[in-house]
Amino acid sequence: MPAVWTDRHRLHAPGFGVWLGVAIPGDEEPERGDALREALDASGFDRHEATAHGDEPVLAVHRPEMVEFLSRAHRDWVVAGHLDDPGQPLVVPYVFALPQVTSGRRCPRPAAIRAEVGTYAMDTMTPIGPGTYAAARAAADCALTAADLVLQGAPAAYAAVRPPGHHAGRDFYGGSCYLNNAAIAAQHLCDNGAGRVAIIDIDAHHGNGTQEIFWDRGDVWFGSVHVDPGAGWFPHFAGFADERGAGAGAGATRNAVLAPGAGDDEWVPAVRALADEALGGRPDVVVVSLGVDAAESDPESPLRVTLSGYLAAGAALAGIGVRTVFVQEGGYDVAALGALVLAVLDGYESGS
Amino acid sequence: MPAVWTDRHRLHAPGFGVWLGVAIPGDEEPERGDALREALDASGFDRHEATAHGDEPVLAVHRPEMVEFLSRAHRDWVVAGHLDDPGQPLVVPYVFALPQVTSGRRCPRPAAIRAEVGTYAMDTMTPIGPGTYAAARAAADCALTAADLVLQGAPAAYAAVRPPGHHAGRDFYGGSCYLNNAAIAAQHLCDNGAGRVAIIDIDAHHGNGTQEIFWDRGDVWFGSVHVDPGAGWFPHFAGFADERGAGAGAGATRNAVLAPGAGDDEWVPAVRALADEALGGRPDVVVVSLGVDAAESDPESPLRVTLSGYLAAGAALAGIGVRTVFVQEGGYDVAALGALVLAVLDGYESGS
Repeated sequence: MPAVWTDRHRLHAPGFGVWLGVAIPGDEEPERGDALREALDASGFDRHEATAHGDEPVLAVHRPEMVEFLSRAHRDWVVAGHLDDPGQPLVVPYVFALPQVTSGRRCPRPAAIRAEVGTYAMDTMTPIGPGTYAAARAAADCALTAADLVLQGAPAAYAAVRPPGHHAGRDFYGGSCYLNNAAIAAQHLCDNGAGRVAIIDIDAHHGNGTQEIFWDRGDVWFGSVHVDPGAGWFPHFAGFADERGAGAGAGATRNAVLAPGAGDDEWVPAVRALADEALGGRPDVVVVSLGVDAAESDPESPLRVTLSGYLAAGAALAGIGVRTVFVQEGGYDVAALGALVLAVLDGYESGS
Repeated sequence: MPAVWTDRHRLHAPGFGVWLGVAIPGDEEPERGDALREALDASGFDRHEATAHGDEPVLAVHRPEMVEFLSRAHRDWVVAGHLDDPGQPLVVPYVFALPQVTSGRRCPRPAAIRAEVGTYAMDTMTPIGPGTYAAARAAADCALTAADLVLQGAPAAYAAVRPPGHHAGRDFYGGSCYLNNAAIAAQHLCDNGAGRVAIIDIDAHHGNGTQEIFWDRGDVWFGSVHVDPGAGWFPHFAGFADERGAGAGAGATRNAVLAPGAGDDEWVPAVRALADEALGGRPDVVVVSLGVDAAESDPESPLRVTLSGYLAAGAALAGIGVRTVFVQEGGYDVAALGALVLAVLDGYESGS
């Protein structure tokens, strides 16, 4: 299948995240993208460059004020003199607009960039550097280009993107995600003829941003299999089994939660069940949020999925029998990243 | 006037705060309390020890779940193994339950203490150490004891407390504040015969926690003079002039905002105007949130109030002519702290 790529991902290289008040080495860094490219090239994928799609498909998913904020945050940070402080120079929040803090009222846009960031950021682990916005936009363009390939007739396409997207919501960012690439691709498909889209998120962590974006939508079904946030895992505040959508989207959200330590025996049937439920909704196109951090060797999750589990997941997704856009999400064992992704894509092609 | 004191404030000694992702030295440390004690002793104040008041008056103001959280947060942090991580050992959040993140739904209590803290903390500058809760409860007991002295007939009393309280709301903490001492005292006055209470907050920063607690209450009027959050000052998200309360409290909130650089010429008339408006409401008791960080030498605010400005403020507060409970808030020029507080109290006594 065609794979879409951009080397502009390298513009985003935070180098660290702030965890419980302390800077620790980053795990969502350029070597992830480079590992994906090497794996694709070694396997003879037809590699396409991403094409620019402009603001419209991004603004169709994200609140314009947040997109504009992301585009200027690092520049404003420099102007505010925060680069003059000792320590790290990237945008990290320190104060947060919790709902209780404003009695549920929407607060005015804070005058200081150091406070404005806390109206959008859900964590201190997702720094904004000078090239972050350009990289995030390039990732969205990758996902959009993959969606275009499918709209133009390809049975499937893979967007080899970073930074990932599924933790970014309409109006917030976090979890190493800035713009929701998979959601932007799904909306683009809706806006170009797909009547029903199913998003299946197999990243180890709940795709809380995607869920929030399509929470009350009946035309986009969202299913996610992930480690139980109730067992203390990110994103902590969402991803529970009783979250099923609302309004026109009531019943169109499905969360399959797995206990820490779960492996192929639990994970593969959960992926199959999501594929079956998606199939039942007769989608025109499927978007797969393809994180591979459920792998047993991954440092960021306690799940224990093997290469053969990922192969089986690819086959299960092929069983839906509709055009599919794969969008890369997490996966932090860089040495294994390429092989894990290829297992899903190989499993899909073998099963198609 | 009598001054209420406890040396249990020393149990809270964070040593640092996390500012834009970087640990910096703390400014709300035990030497503040010690400076207040020295000033009181040197001036011959009648110094009373705080007496324990139990949970009830605290729970009358704060959400019980948050109080319980504060009481166990550091212990849970130790149990979770976060002390084993490199870096600092106190409770500092990294992920925050912004309203957009949960689509406005109240999320279940997070399983992990490292996430639960982000449902209450509004910033990374307010660490919880092993003695923080005990110190915060002791501060509330100081304020309650001062309120008791006034209920028993004293014309005025001063609670020399730290940590401060006015940034802590019913269901959140931050800005170096954990429990809202002034609000707890005000509610205690209400619950013991005061039909109408006026709170006047002269700290350099808006008392957003106090405002939120009494937002829709008609029996407690809240007025604050502070540096304009619209000019980029903490607490950033609240403290604007158009915030006037709601429901039964509509019109019972008054925010006087001053531009950075404002001094006695602007600040003293603003205090007088608050005192006049409070007087117009015919309160039975006044509670003063006595921060002195508007002083020109203070490192935490751009206001430029002088000792004679504080003396004039004390006289203006005396002009209301009702019993008054003074509760210490901020003030970070430790060398000047005692003299600034004494100026207000002297001005009050001279004007009474």
